[in-house]
Amino acid sequence: MEPTSFVLFGATGDLAKRKIYPALYNLFVDQKLPQSFSVIGLGRRELSDEEFQARVEQSLHDYSRREANDPVLIKNFISSFHYNVLNIGHKEDYQRLLQRIEQREDELALPPNRIFYLSVGPEYFDVIASNIKESGLGSAKGWKRLLIEKPFGHDLQSARDLNQKLSKAFAEEEIFRIDHYLGKPMVQELGILQQNNSVLDALWTNRYIANVQITANETVGVEERAGYYDQVGAVRDMFQNHMLQLLMMLAIHLPKNSTSEEVRLKKKKVMESLEPLQKQDVISNVVRGQYKAGTIQGNPVIGYTSEPNIAETSMNDTFIAAKLRIDAAFWREVPFYIRTGKRMKEKSTRIVIEFKEPLKQQSSANNESNIPNLLVFEISPNEGITLQLNTRDPQHKGEFKPIHIDFHTSRQDMPEAYENLLYDALHGDPTFFAHWDEVELSWKWVQPILHAFEENLVPLHHYQAGTYGPAESDELLAKDGYHWWFDSKPEQEVETIKGEKYAYHTND
Amino acid sequence: MEPTSFVLFGATGDLAKRKIYPALYNLFVDQKLPQSFSVIGLGRRELSDEEFQARVEQSLHDYSRREANDPVLIKNFISSFHYNVLNIGHKEDYQRLLQRIEQREDELALPPNRIFYLSVGPEYFDVIASNIKESGLGSAKGWKRLLIEKPFGHDLQSARDLNQKLSKAFAEEEIFRIDHYLGKPMVQELGILQQNNSVLDALWTNRYIANVQITANETVGVEERAGYYDQVGAVRDMFQNHMLQLLMMLAIHLPKNSTSEEVRLKKKKVMESLEPLQKQDVISNVVRGQYKAGTIQGNPVIGYTSEPNIAETSMNDTFIAAKLRIDAAFWREVPFYIRTGKRMKEKSTRIVIEFKEPLKQQSSANNESNIPNLLVFEISPNEGITLQLNTRDPQHKGEFKPIHIDFHTSRQDMPEAYENLLYDALHGDPTFFAHWDEVELSWKWVQPILHAFEENLVPLHHYQAGTYGPAESDELLAKDGYHWWFDSKPEQEVETIKGEKYAYHTND
Repeated sequence: MEPTSFVLFGATGDLAKRKIYPALYNLFVDQKLPQSFSVIGLGRRELSDEEFQARVEQSLHDYSRREANDPVLIKNFISSFHYNVLNIGHKEDYQRLLQRIEQREDELALPPNRIFYLSVGPEYFDVIASNIKESGLGSAKGWKRLLIEKPFGHDLQSARDLNQKLSKAFAEEEIFRIDHYLGKPMVQELGILQQNNSVLDALWTNRYIANVQITANETVGVEERAGYYDQVGAVRDMFQNHMLQLLMMLAIHLPKNSTSEEVRLKKKKVMESLEPLQKQDVISNVVRGQYKAGTIQGNPVIGYTSEPNIAETSMNDTFIAAKLRIDAAFWREVPFYIRTGKRMKEKSTRIVIEFKEPLKQQSSANNESNIPNLLVFEISPNEGITLQLNTRDPQHKGEFKPIHIDFHTSRQDMPEAYENLLYDALHGDPTFFAHWDEVELSWKWVQPILHAFEENLVPLHHYQAGTYGPAESDELLAKDGYHWWFDSKPEQEVETIKGEKYAYHTND
Repeated sequence: MEPTSFVLFGATGDLAKRKIYPALYNLFVDQKLPQSFSVIGLGRRELSDEEFQARVEQSLHDYSRREANDPVLIKNFISSFHYNVLNIGHKEDYQRLLQRIEQREDELALPPNRIFYLSVGPEYFDVIASNIKESGLGSAKGWKRLLIEKPFGHDLQSARDLNQKLSKAFAEEEIFRIDHYLGKPMVQELGILQQNNSVLDALWTNRYIANVQITANETVGVEERAGYYDQVGAVRDMFQNHMLQLLMMLAIHLPKNSTSEEVRLKKKKVMESLEPLQKQDVISNVVRGQYKAGTIQGNPVIGYTSEPNIAETSMNDTFIAAKLRIDAAFWREVPFYIRTGKRMKEKSTRIVIEFKEPLKQQSSANNESNIPNLLVFEISPNEGITLQLNTRDPQHKGEFKPIHIDFHTSRQDMPEAYENLLYDALHGDPTFFAHWDEVELSWKWVQPILHAFEENLVPLHHYQAGTYGPAESDELLAKDGYHWWFDSKPEQEVETIKGEKYAYHTND
């Protein structure tokens, strides 16, 4: 791996503290960082290198999945960290930054390979990119890469505007758009499993699949993000990016050992094949919801419009469910149901593949109603794969019961999403990042929904906090003869939820 | 369930004690016996009813999977048991038996439904059947059923002779030939799983399956059965019956809710489609082995020809491996490899379905050698289903490792083979018994092997006790580019073997 300078905008922010530093530390422990590695943290606040390093160290104690208790190891790690004050709008600060980076490159004999990580609000993306270019920070002989967090635009037009601005300073192949769902181990497994297992590859088609259900339910409300969230809603915060990325990752058919470019093209193909919605179709294919007061795991919680900094008249969506179709040979006639919501009964991100039942003619002999076979990818809060089969109860002949064939990994050994993504960015592997084509096509597909919501063509259904969303979400599937799997799981089976929140996305 | 008299020949024997009484008891506890139920035990020995009942009770304490510690329950159970002395060759004894049965039928107001269970040596089968007929025992107005243990003949001709004799006293639908492998829960699951799970049904074809491996390895030697075993060998003791039944159960394609008659016809179809071996083909498709001295789990054991009552010059087979092909649309080009042996490294009965690897053209990009997908049915000593998939090691990107998706049932709740079989016999359900067609076709298929062994056309390979048999068994698969799965499992992974032996078959 090539020696690199890692330039972090927003170094005193919450995401850096909770995710980026622990991820870099775990990569360091796993010897997955370049031999020579320099981190320059940037922030508005005045901090000495020592103060900065102390903050980094504290973040490891607070948030690393591995215990950080080896003083030698930690010292080696944080000695790579230095800090510069930078006011994003001050061009002269970028000049000082350039000097500092060059000084470190000299000291460490680093080639001028630079990663610029924008862990800041999206309103600063274009200013920073432009200043990187103008200051000469990005014109060294080595390579440069831009890592940016979501959101990438507010709608199709703003996303195009932003991309145009960024592309003046960085080429598309230099831009790594983080969608942290793509870094999650089970999401990365989706393709791996399908490519490397003939039995799964054989089943991955409309010949055997009845429908696909993608769920990302949260128990949290808007938290400290009220002002931001009320402007975006579930459709922009989750659906346009994370949910459509999950759909792409599931729907692509990849040959073994596909290149990153092949993945990109296949994902683009999925988005192009997604049957477009017209504004007037939204009402029958999309459910909009907003939570009202309720109870989650015994604790009463307030309704959305009672949250601090939310107007009582807000029509913002905190829940969205949608039915999508892919017009491609493999997926014709297979509905994809997607839903995501806040203040749901339980925290769970999962994909359920429901297989077709055996032929009707074969099962007409009696009324036995077998449960369809299911292949379940549990993405969060626990990772796992489950295959649900029907078997006979050995105690009661003739009675059938489902069995679950589970594979659950040990959580502790599992790298976090940010470790996977930072490792790939350091390697220059763009496979698990959101490419511009996907972002643009996602916004394009979502745009009629945004319009329909704005024009109130779609009713806003209020659902009680601590439920699975409005009844209309269930009806969306019931119309096709299906239902959401694993709702109303008995309370005791539900895994304990470990509350975690951080500034830029609570969507863990 | 209809009230029944259960007439047991060989009531003081080992099988009755170890399997039949505990099975009846567990059916009784599960309320799966008829409300009115009379057991008449028969033996040469003089025993009072009380002595017989005490023996039955003792057998529950010694061999029942459930603890037999409720005195009221046990008293209720054993009060159904009565005993008659019977000398198999004495016609007058059958007259006395008839009187006793009728007396019990009167006392209990039982209809004259009678099950005759021959838990005796095969040399007595026809005499008993004939005496049942002549004595009038079998000519009552109710139904009659004959349950018989293996072996059913010694070769094709003797099996036909025996069947002809039995058929003078019992119609084919009244004869329930026990192959206790068909009573094992996982063997019964084979069909159930395939019929009720569209994903397995989809995969159950030569389109996806590369080969099928059926193994029944034992660690025991000939034990007390030397005289008998030396006359039959592995081919008659295991292969012609149990192993070919496993092959049939795996290879049939059954629609859901198939009737017993459909199962019978499909099994017959499989046997008819089994590509016949000519005597001269045996050498290239069948491996014959005999164990020599060796070590099993640290204990030295003697060779076969050193066993008591075995001649030093014996050429008997204690191991057989064979390659079979089924000439049917679903199975064309799919070899079935079958092996069974004594004094093997570990006790294990299992079926492995090896799936084809992804297309070569897709995997040529690099040298990654994935392990094929496997679906494994563990039949004995532990029940379980395993699906083996390839996944990426989340710690080391690019490295693949197999994952095992396991479903293991709790042993304790699992009915034993004899419970399933006795329950079915009481119900008159012949699905999981060996029908004459199957028995005849099995002997017919095996006959060239018997001839080739007798004429020494096939070399006898000596293998060390405590191994997986002769190297030629591995070569049988290696010629086709395959190998036996799960051999050389590390010692610590091997389940502890619970030694169990009983008179009529040690092949547990």
